[in-house]
Amino acid sequence: MSRIPIAILGATGAVGQRMIQLLANHPWFEIAVLTGSDRTIGKPYGELVRWVLDGSPPPHIASMIVQPSDKVADVALALSALPTDAARSYEELWAAHTAVCSNASAYRMTPDVPLIIPEVNHEHLSLIDDQRKTRGWRGALVTNPNCSVIGVAMAIKPIESAFGIRQLHVSTLQAVSGAGYPGVASLDIIDNIIPNIANGTEEEKIETEPNKILGTYAAGRIDSAQIQISAQVTRVPVIDGHTALLSIKGVHAINADEARSAIREYVAPEIVKNLPSSPERAVILHDHAERPQPRRDRDAGNGMSTSVGRLRACPINDVRMVVLSHNTIRGAAGGAILNAELLVAAGYIRTH
Amino acid sequence: MSRIPIAILGATGAVGQRMIQLLANHPWFEIAVLTGSDRTIGKPYGELVRWVLDGSPPPHIASMIVQPSDKVADVALALSALPTDAARSYEELWAAHTAVCSNASAYRMTPDVPLIIPEVNHEHLSLIDDQRKTRGWRGALVTNPNCSVIGVAMAIKPIESAFGIRQLHVSTLQAVSGAGYPGVASLDIIDNIIPNIANGTEEEKIETEPNKILGTYAAGRIDSAQIQISAQVTRVPVIDGHTALLSIKGVHAINADEARSAIREYVAPEIVKNLPSSPERAVILHDHAERPQPRRDRDAGNGMSTSVGRLRACPINDVRMVVLSHNTIRGAAGGAILNAELLVAAGYIRTH
Amino acid sequence: MSRIPIAILGATGAVGQRMIQLLANHPWFEIAVLTGSDRTIGKPYGELVRWVLDGSPPPHIASMIVQPSDKVADVALALSALPTDAARSYEELWAAHTAVCSNASAYRMTPDVPLIIPEVNHEHLSLIDDQRKTRGWRGALVTNPNCSVIGVAMAIKPIESAFGIRQLHVSTLQAVSGAGYPGVASLDIIDNIIPNIANGTEEEKIETEPNKILGTYAAGRIDSAQIQISAQVTRVPVIDGHTALLSIKGVHAINADEARSAIREYVAPEIVKNLPSSPERAVILHDHAERPQPRRDRDAGNGMSTSVGRLRACPINDVRMVVLSHNTIRGAAGGAILNAELLVAAGYIRTH
Amino acid sequence: MSRIPIAILGATGAVGQRMIQLLANHPWFEIAVLTGSDRTIGKPYGELVRWVLDGSPPPHIASMIVQPSDKVADVALALSALPTDAARSYEELWAAHTAVCSNASAYRMTPDVPLIIPEVNHEHLSLIDDQRKTRGWRGALVTNPNCSVIGVAMAIKPIESAFGIRQLHVSTLQAVSGAGYPGVASLDIIDNIIPNIANGTEEEKIETEPNKILGTYAAGRIDSAQIQISAQVTRVPVIDGHTALLSIKGVHAINADEARSAIREYVAPEIVKNLPSSPERAVILHDHAERPQPRRDRDAGNGMSTSVGRLRACPINDVRMVVLSHNTIRGAAGGAILNAELLVAAGYIRTH
Repeated sequence: MSRIPIAILGATGAVGQRMIQLLANHPWFEIAVLTGSDRTIGKPYGELVRWVLDGSPPPHIASMIVQPSDKVADVALALSALPTDAARSYEELWAAHTAVCSNASAYRMTPDVPLIIPEVNHEHLSLIDDQRKTRGWRGALVTNPNCSVIGVAMAIKPIESAFGIRQLHVSTLQAVSGAGYPGVASLDIIDNIIPNIANGTEEEKIETEPNKILGTYAAGRIDSAQIQISAQVTRVPVIDGHTALLSIKGVHAINADEARSAIREYVAPEIVKNLPSSPERAVILHDHAERPQPRRDRDAGNGMSTSVGRLRACPINDVRMVVLSHNTIRGAAGGAILNAELLVAAGYIRTH
Repeated sequence: MSRIPIAILGATGAVGQRMIQLLANHPWFEIAVLTGSDRTIGKPYGELVRWVLDGSPPPHIASMIVQPSDKVADVALALSALPTDAARSYEELWAAHTAVCSNASAYRMTPDVPLIIPEVNHEHLSLIDDQRKTRGWRGALVTNPNCSVIGVAMAIKPIESAFGIRQLHVSTLQAVSGAGYPGVASLDIIDNIIPNIANGTEEEKIETEPNKILGTYAAGRIDSAQIQISAQVTRVPVIDGHTALLSIKGVHAINADEARSAIREYVAPEIVKNLPSSPERAVILHDHAERPQPRRDRDAGNGMSTSVGRLRACPINDVRMVVLSHNTIRGAAGGAILNAELLVAAGYIRTH
Repeated sequence: MSRIPIAILGATGAVGQRMIQLLANHPWFEIAVLTGSDRTIGKPYGELVRWVLDGSPPPHIASMIVQPSDKVADVALALSALPTDAARSYEELWAAHTAVCSNASAYRMTPDVPLIIPEVNHEHLSLIDDQRKTRGWRGALVTNPNCSVIGVAMAIKPIESAFGIRQLHVSTLQAVSGAGYPGVASLDIIDNIIPNIANGTEEEKIETEPNKILGTYAAGRIDSAQIQISAQVTRVPVIDGHTALLSIKGVHAINADEARSAIREYVAPEIVKNLPSSPERAVILHDHAERPQPRRDRDAGNGMSTSVGRLRACPINDVRMVVLSHNTIRGAAGGAILNAELLVAAGYIRTH
Repeated sequence: MSRIPIAILGATGAVGQRMIQLLANHPWFEIAVLTGSDRTIGKPYGELVRWVLDGSPPPHIASMIVQPSDKVADVALALSALPTDAARSYEELWAAHTAVCSNASAYRMTPDVPLIIPEVNHEHLSLIDDQRKTRGWRGALVTNPNCSVIGVAMAIKPIESAFGIRQLHVSTLQAVSGAGYPGVASLDIIDNIIPNIANGTEEEKIETEPNKILGTYAAGRIDSAQIQISAQVTRVPVIDGHTALLSIKGVHAINADEARSAIREYVAPEIVKNLPSSPERAVILHDHAERPQPRRDRDAGNGMSTSVGRLRACPINDVRMVVLSHNTIRGAAGGAILNAELLVAAGYIRTH
């Protein structure tokens, strides 16, 4: 098929840049519109962007003129890397006409907005039908989870399916790229750890989003899962890749060997498997006792696989494990792109 | 009083170096003997040591000739920075004649060997009387805990006293200096995290030592505390200062405000307060939501204070908090020195 | 003598904070006034400052109310940590009444403003007499050099005295604290180097300031030294401590052994030796082939000594060497304080 | 053509690993033999290797049994990642039968051994004819330069061609991967710089190798170039990518604009252009004043391009510039592979 023209909302920030980088040779999508804040409108993208990734923006993107975020473009699909406030201002405008796949937190917990990880809960997309009915939208609004939640949810999904989960302790070691640019000052993080992120709101997201993601769609709504979650987060001197230490208590006692098997046998649903950005394995289980590590494992599956290691019994709960995923690829830009691909495969995008 | 001549066993490693640095101007102790491995015996300390701390060894130490560790010197006190195997070979030899304060793990869990944090369980020193009776020693063998345990035990002591503790989740972010020198390769830790230390044995120590430390001395033995502990450890790119994230369930429900008060009101016992290396406050409670941080707080109380922050309710257990302590000062060399000072104050050292 | 009340201009930034930290127990000076920008005026210092150093501001400073920088206070001495523009707006106002020791670059190259490193060119203070005569000031304006220049100038002074210097190549590896706070983004510097600082202006300072510092005072003006200087600067992932690699061609051929002797025999002038912040040795010469190193040597002489190592012949010029100094102590806050102490000793401060 | 079976000598170290990684999908070469030290012989590669790169070794390599380095295998081509001493012991053995492309320093300066950067001096390969004649070899021995030299030589080649070079100052900031594994201890390099590498021998290599590389082949020997070089090296907390600051004086005065043009117009010789590992551009010239940077530019041209920036006039010499290249790809494993490809293209490999 000819490629689908798409818009990137909030294209100048770190997540917007990553979307552009990941879409460089995308087989389905073609960047047609970039939007930015007042400061950037009307200027060529390449002149105003402070590119924080490796290399430089592709030349044909660098020459595109940045558009205002409040002017809905005639494209069938938009990826949103808008900051929370801007997302609240503009995403519904776009969603009335266009399918919006948003990385912003603004609408993640809104009841009729699906919070999607394709391998985990693609069936929640049915909420779009309700959105269209109730809100009169021709487009849609779909979100992906917080960058720490996404790996955790992928890693526990096979365990939740096999045993049910009652309690979940999460301790994270999060990369600086999660704070955007300029984000974390080097004076705050070289030879240092910051034991808090966004003044507790990061922990709040980790304690709520997984229950929506692992919930069940029925009759126009999501019945939340009922996992008790406690999250303690830290920022560490790592560029990319969030690490999480989990301790899990099952509804039924979780056996470590069976949990390992559950993860090994876990396969993405058919509709997800063939999406262009879908990794060969959604969750990779490591046997080596010192893995996963952010620098060595974050790029697994082109940054789209979640890695799990040290799955073993816990003296208090049932099992413990270490989870790693790439926070700006799977946890942000790549997550939104995979959602967009899923929308295409599921027939929610006008492709003509 | 004139200063007590002491020996430092295993003086060339990272912990031995830190002992030398901390004793530079000690009011009670004077370094009389340095021991080292075969490679180093008979040579001037300054020529063979690969000094890994800031600055250089003091000149009068640099010119001392290194002695064999198996030749017990005529000193009343020895600080041991020996590696585990060497500790197992030599510490009992020394303890027959001399009070040995050891940082090694070899004998920490041996029933008649006190595992001491002066502010927490100085009364366990009574085990020395049993050592002398049963083993016929004129000296003694006293140990300090693992570098991660020491801060955790200090931080939970006031809570344990006020509420009792039933369950304890510990996730650590440990500094590279904890692995000694050369220790962690830079290729393994720059822009990276290693989610394991010493192949699980570090976690084992965290899951056992606190119960001995918080136990009760009675009639020649320690009745262990009965806290269920689960530890998950990581190595992080930080030079000094171990961070631990704790989630605690009390025997009696722990109220966060009362726990904060318990920590604030916690004072060291009279016999400890006036020891030269005793910090003004054993445990410092932070109110700022982004503290404690290793680089900014590890040197509190000259590296001898433990810092606690983010003490708040836990959605699963009762309370959560962040604990930081300097792993090579309070958690190793300084801990051993404080134990030695305590032995003097408690009358266990021949000072003539 | 009773302590001299002083003002700190621009007290909330990183350099202002370091001044406060270094003055905590100063024998001569007592902080009486703190000034700040509009945002901060009228508020207690402790509430508004984002303290970037270790620990916290001293309690009696934390409770002081921040004053406007444009209201000259009745103190005999002011230390200025103002940013360049603010320095240009306010320092002359203060200098009319008060001796101002400024770390700002605004007036460093102004002909009648001394650019002072006490050990190197204290006699340039005579310019103050000219300032007072020409400008009608009762106070004075004295500056200290750029944070990279200060160590370089101290290190080459004994060589310049012994041989004269014709050409000087300088390559620097500068710490992130030199950029203030928030300064360098962690995304820009973890696992990275930035081969430029302040878009070339840092190099310009290194290429000009040393010639003023090493110049000769005569009849109301400084005759500049005539060293050709080429500087290439980089930012590196180091918290504190600027490293410089030097290659030097003498007016007379410089012999490496004699250069080493010149540095070893270099002593501060009598008037400087007894200043409270004066280090025992202004320049420390290392023999160890891997020193000086920023983390291990920056705190030498309480951060006031400059360290030199690897002084050896150069295949192109005469000699090469490595220079290290603490950029926010000797290179900024401590440099300004030492200048202030020199003003007292030289009789330029009203002390009654 | 069917792929050429090759051996990798010293396959377990960091450079050997990188060779394996880069050859994963090589169109011309197929790994047939891996050799290692006594400790490793007879074991499957995957079980004994401590893989220090991202990800893991490819499965078909992991199952190969490691062979002794002193047993010459029947392959037409060998890549050597042997340490210097082992190179001295074994490379000539292999070269008698097989074309050896070595990354070791052992024979780089041997008169009849070409020291090759294909884009710079491919014509030096003619020395192989002399090797074969004089030594009676059926194979050959070809070396690639030191990891710091390779980028510097590529960057100055167009300038040398256009103006001649008389003097060259080089200051380097070298990545930790250059020291192999375990290499640099994290305690030595986090928040730190080490101002020396290999006790001066690294500088020696930088001061000699470029003159051989830029020399002229004539009648069985290389007439060295006559550039005076002064090198000052440092180790910095960067994983991969060596940065070098250059100051250059030409035989004829070098104009910065013309030097820029010379670099921009520089193209690899025809025989090199189509080699599989040859980058699109050998040398990339940056205009942005803060580039090149190791993390952002080391992977340019799949790690095979050298990046140059800040090319500008020098107050002492003619021009200055910043050079960056990937030390373990272009500067080691990739350099050896490109040399091997060149040997094939130049007809020096038996391919039947």
